[in-house]
Amino acid sequence: MTYCVGILVSGGLVMIGDTRTNAGIDNIATFRKLHLFETPGERVVGIATSGNLSLSQSVLSLVNEGILNPETGQIETLFNVPTMLAAAHLIGRAMRKVYEIDGAALEEHGLHFDMKVLLGGQIGDQPLRLFHLYSEGNSIEATPDTPYLQIGEPKYGKPILDRAISHEVEIRDALKIGLISMDSTLQSNLSVGLPIDILVIRRGELQAAVYHRIDDHDEYFRDLRERWSKALRAAHQSIPNPPYAELL
Amino acid sequence: MTYCVGILVSGGLVMIGDTRTNAGIDNIATFRKLHLFETPGERVVGIATSGNLSLSQSVLSLVNEGILNPETGQIETLFNVPTMLAAAHLIGRAMRKVYEIDGAALEEHGLHFDMKVLLGGQIGDQPLRLFHLYSEGNSIEATPDTPYLQIGEPKYGKPILDRAISHEVEIRDALKIGLISMDSTLQSNLSVGLPIDILVIRRGELQAAVYHRIDDHDEYFRDLRERWSKALRAAHQSIPNPPYAELL
Repeated sequence: MTYCVGILVSGGLVMIGDTRTNAGIDNIATFRKLHLFETPGERVVGIATSGNLSLSQSVLSLVNEGILNPETGQIETLFNVPTMLAAAHLIGRAMRKVYEIDGAALEEHGLHFDMKVLLGGQIGDQPLRLFHLYSEGNSIEATPDTPYLQIGEPKYGKPILDRAISHEVEIRDALKIGLISMDSTLQSNLSVGLPIDILVIRRGELQAAVYHRIDDHDEYFRDLRERWSKALRAAHQSIPNPPYAELL
Repeated sequence: MTYCVGILVSGGLVMIGDTRTNAGIDNIATFRKLHLFETPGERVVGIATSGNLSLSQSVLSLVNEGILNPETGQIETLFNVPTMLAAAHLIGRAMRKVYEIDGAALEEHGLHFDMKVLLGGQIGDQPLRLFHLYSEGNSIEATPDTPYLQIGEPKYGKPILDRAISHEVEIRDALKIGLISMDSTLQSNLSVGLPIDILVIRRGELQAAVYHRIDDHDEYFRDLRERWSKALRAAHQSIPNPPYAELL
């Protein structure tokens, strides 16, 4: 399993991804799921993937090699697509190509063609955008109304996002809340694990402000987890007792 | 969808269930999922159900009518089974009987035989127990190590339980934490809805201490939701900013 979240706020974009992959619960490994593609000063693009690792690796390999855009005749990579929408289409084409190659065989073996992508970033003076691509290669885009998108196991980490994230929150708060959301998932789902990767892009700055790996020994994240646990305990302790019975 | 949770602590048992059922998102209704069976001074038993409403109603109807126990030759109901384990077996038999009646036809139409049950309570001076019955009629039981069990949509409400519930928490705190867990689910999943039913049984007291419906107008629950939202905001605001970039 996987948990990745992208949060697009007025100040910029935060992307967070875990690194655990498993083929059965007795076969667990660490693979990076959050990737940075940047030409500082010109473009900065982040990609996070979930689902079948072989599929997401194949898609990234194709995207790195470059894929023909039938409309322009150009071989496209994330380093030359002209817009973020073109980047989403490029990845969608790569997903459809991998489906052509591997889809039928997977289905013969009773497996779904399952992979999802978060794609975020900015090219030149165009808007900073965040997309969620489905297995079929189509996509939705974050908006001020719904400024965050998740892939993998979204549920454990969703309540804090629903309550705390809005388009207006500061980017440092978006990162903090994203890390709390990741922590909730780590706590409740063994198939999501440390280390985690974080990417922060400030709107208008055409390079990553943060691209960092948080591991077991990361003091800030350890402190955040402890403080959050303590604060949750204090929070429910501060709520008055239920009045439903004198007995209680 | 559904969310029901049972929490077994040293002081007693808390059971909470929502009431929303849906057949498609445009066909939503309210049905009680948490039921009380008690003979005060002799026994007190709570049942919560999730899954296909027709199946859970059929199971409850069979259990109310009584089912032959082939080993004893007795017609059993929840009002005469001698132990909570026998109650679990009774419900398991009812589930298997409904599967015999409806299972094949459901499967012909591509539907799973899907229902789950939380069964909790105390009979006489025997222990207070909490079981989770699966669609197949088998069960697991809560223990001091894992004092809570969930059916329906468990994920949104699990992080707070994982952090705050232990066998030693006061029963009023177990109720409060259970309500917070329900609130997290209500916030994030439209198919779980108010009103919610709560049942509290104090260990050794052979009758319900609380059996109450919380609706939209319930002041305590409304206050709890507001305080919890505020406390969550305060909690993440109290966490220091991430140090991963001077920029932030």
